Amino acid sequence: MKRENKNLTRRDLLKSAAAAGAGMGIAGLSEEAVSAAPAGRSVRGMKFEKRDTVRLGIIGVGGRGTGVMREFLAVDNVEVVAVCDVDKEKTERAQKYVEKAGKKTPAAYFKNDRDFENLCKRDDIDFIYIATPWDWHAPMAIAAMNNGKHCGVEVPAVNTLKECWDIVNTSEKTQRHCMIMENCCYGSSEMMVLNMVREGLLGELLHAECAYDHDLRELLFSNEGEGLWRRFPHMKRNGNLYPTHGLGPVAFYMDINRTDRFDYMVSMSSPSLGLDEWRAAKIPKDDPKWKEKYVCGDVNTSLIRTTKGRTIMLQHNITSPRPYDRINQIQGTKGIFQDYPARIYVEGQKGGERWATLDGYKDKYEHPLWKQVGELARKNGGHGGMDFIMCYRLIQCIREGLAPDMDVYDAAAWSAPAQLSEMSVARGSMPVKFPIFMRG
Amino acid sequence: MKRENKNLTRRDLLKSAAAAGAGMGIAGLSEEAVSAAPAGRSVRGMKFEKRDTVRLGIIGVGGRGTGVMREFLAVDNVEVVAVCDVDKEKTERAQKYVEKAGKKTPAAYFKNDRDFENLCKRDDIDFIYIATPWDWHAPMAIAAMNNGKHCGVEVPAVNTLKECWDIVNTSEKTQRHCMIMENCCYGSSEMMVLNMVREGLLGELLHAECAYDHDLRELLFSNEGEGLWRRFPHMKRNGNLYPTHGLGPVAFYMDINRTDRFDYMVSMSSPSLGLDEWRAAKIPKDDPKWKEKYVCGDVNTSLIRTTKGRTIMLQHNITSPRPYDRINQIQGTKGIFQDYPARIYVEGQKGGERWATLDGYKDKYEHPLWKQVGELARKNGGHGGMDFIMCYRLIQCIREGLAPDMDVYDAAAWSAPAQLSEMSVARGSMPVKFPIFMRG
Repeated sequence: MKRENKNLTRRDLLKSAAAAGAGMGIAGLSEEAVSAAPAGRSVRGMKFEKRDTVRLGIIGVGGRGTGVMREFLAVDNVEVVAVCDVDKEKTERAQKYVEKAGKKTPAAYFKNDRDFENLCKRDDIDFIYIATPWDWHAPMAIAAMNNGKHCGVEVPAVNTLKECWDIVNTSEKTQRHCMIMENCCYGSSEMMVLNMVREGLLGELLHAECAYDHDLRELLFSNEGEGLWRRFPHMKRNGNLYPTHGLGPVAFYMDINRTDRFDYMVSMSSPSLGLDEWRAAKIPKDDPKWKEKYVCGDVNTSLIRTTKGRTIMLQHNITSPRPYDRINQIQGTKGIFQDYPARIYVEGQKGGERWATLDGYKDKYEHPLWKQVGELARKNGGHGGMDFIMCYRLIQCIREGLAPDMDVYDAAAWSAPAQLSEMSVARGSMPVKFPIFMRG
Repeated sequence: MKRENKNLTRRDLLKSAAAAGAGMGIAGLSEEAVSAAPAGRSVRGMKFEKRDTVRLGIIGVGGRGTGVMREFLAVDNVEVVAVCDVDKEKTERAQKYVEKAGKKTPAAYFKNDRDFENLCKRDDIDFIYIATPWDWHAPMAIAAMNNGKHCGVEVPAVNTLKECWDIVNTSEKTQRHCMIMENCCYGSSEMMVLNMVREGLLGELLHAECAYDHDLRELLFSNEGEGLWRRFPHMKRNGNLYPTHGLGPVAFYMDINRTDRFDYMVSMSSPSLGLDEWRAAKIPKDDPKWKEKYVCGDVNTSLIRTTKGRTIMLQHNITSPRPYDRINQIQGTKGIFQDYPARIYVEGQKGGERWATLDGYKDKYEHPLWKQVGELARKNGGHGGMDFIMCYRLIQCIREGLAPDMDVYDAAAWSAPAQLSEMSVARGSMPVKFPIFMRG
């Protein structure tokens, strides 16, 4: 199967409507510019070296890593050279999937929890994809870059501001990309709305709302998979643990790190009751989980202000019963979009002041990538096809020698609200400034 | 037509489920207790003097005042004794409506903008309802109370913290009630949800979201009605100008000023572009409105924390194109409700983790007031019947000598976010404390 890779640059993809809004002064907050010099030349706009075939290494082949690996395998001109996991059986399962796709069996790394370093040292890998527990993202990405590899990490890319700086500095020092693999930026609605924003359909942007509202109590208490580690942050952190699914698409709409920037934020957490109630209802009293103490508020809500004065409401709620929602709202001076379900109102819209579906807008605003390979994405694809589109687009960028859509500055800015929200919550919702990751 | 007035006390109406959530400490904020002594005995729980027939005075018979007067006229045992407006024709129109309802023609006060004082001095009025431009609410309510009358003011009750204190102090000094006439507390969904919360259906409360998102650009630029004054605050204030439609019902759910209290809030405003764009599109260039400069952010978003650690997202957006929404979301540990459209998810609900309508809950949770007079309310009623229910309930409280559902402490606490949001916005989203209006 042969597909045309249209020469679609990051600039085309993300170019926003005319820069919106006059700058608004901020009272009471001094500018905390980061005075340290960049660790090397900026990686903004740095192009991948063109490769006709893209050779991948994959660290972490659990549920998510294996799923995304299979998306990559569905894209032409991709080889999976090596896979790594602390669980040998998972590497064997991954090898079988690669073979089943008619490709050469990849090497497997499973000896111990530093064996990923040996994968990183290989000289036949162009890009390393990392899908491991959150605490491993930064060290693995840094190892990949220090060994001359571009890499992409699952979300959130990193957990702390220090890790944000570590990946930014390493990316600049090594001149290797460290992408955030934010699949939600590639959703069908998200990319259509991005197109609408770019074409000015919604006018000047004012405000956005986004969230990760997903009842994960059962998963968090599971004795396998993410249940083995993902409950632990709830015992020591109180904030938004998982900001990027909501924030990535909004950052695309608002052209964050291009013509606008996250400036400061405030955050507030509700009581922490969800995990306690779940445990009381479901977990036998002699289970060691009864020794755990949960501190993360069930609903964390943050407000972010950009340097152009736009506002973003960002939410995290994974421990309460409720239907799934990422909100994905964007309000402009001419109209508004909101998801779950996808609905739109544009001034003067037929039918008056009420929500409409996207049906009447699809012909004009469906994103070129979805027009090109949307059918394949839906057939193949995890999460409604967005996973495939993300993988397809990454391979396209490497094969054509383009810059990636999401670089290390985005990885840092979208992940930073994790610790920033904790800081604001701990300080009674005091505003906290975003570091300026793109120095100079 | 004769109806049974069930003896439903404020306590029955609002009694919340078991007090939720352990108290959470607030870092970085000192308690700003108000040390001044109350101006008189607390008016919390103070009962109306029983009146078989309730004699009303009405100040302001424009669109809203006339509408609510007609709701009152549809309730048994009500007389409208006097009406007041600076526009003589409007008082005449009001007189005709009263006559048409088969009642005695009310006296009319229209001589000048202090003639309301003469209405307040009459000795045949039990309760004065005030529906005038916002800046007149506090002086008129104070005049009413100082003349020995209970009163109710339209929303927002007052605009500033000083006015909050003025009505609280006057209410305590005179031992007269100053209610906030928050019709949204009496909506069919709102009262059903209140019942659900009270019965524990949603578990312990965690978080709420509420708003006044209503595109009023045309009204604001109108040359009559509210267009004559309601645009002006947008030239000098930047915050949430109209918080109570959203906040009133949520305050009922959370039992605010009873077992919980608003503690502090942060606020953030988007750019102010909506009125400029509307004027550019619709207003001739020689209109004096072109001299105006708008400063109020189109979307203002605030976060409120209660002393029990619950959180509330509160929004105001009246200058952007979008469908109407008050959100009215309440998340508990067992389920969630959200409006526009009304939808609910309760853990274990038939149909799995997706929204359901209220249909399956109506039999069990419809509020007694709506069961009693809902049909009449819908037939008669403004805003889907909530206006009638509000008036009916007020007359019921007076006739039975009960305390009102919403007293001066509620009027102050629900209106306070107007100025508090301005203060937080002006200070770069710094947290600001709510005054403790219920002293002692």
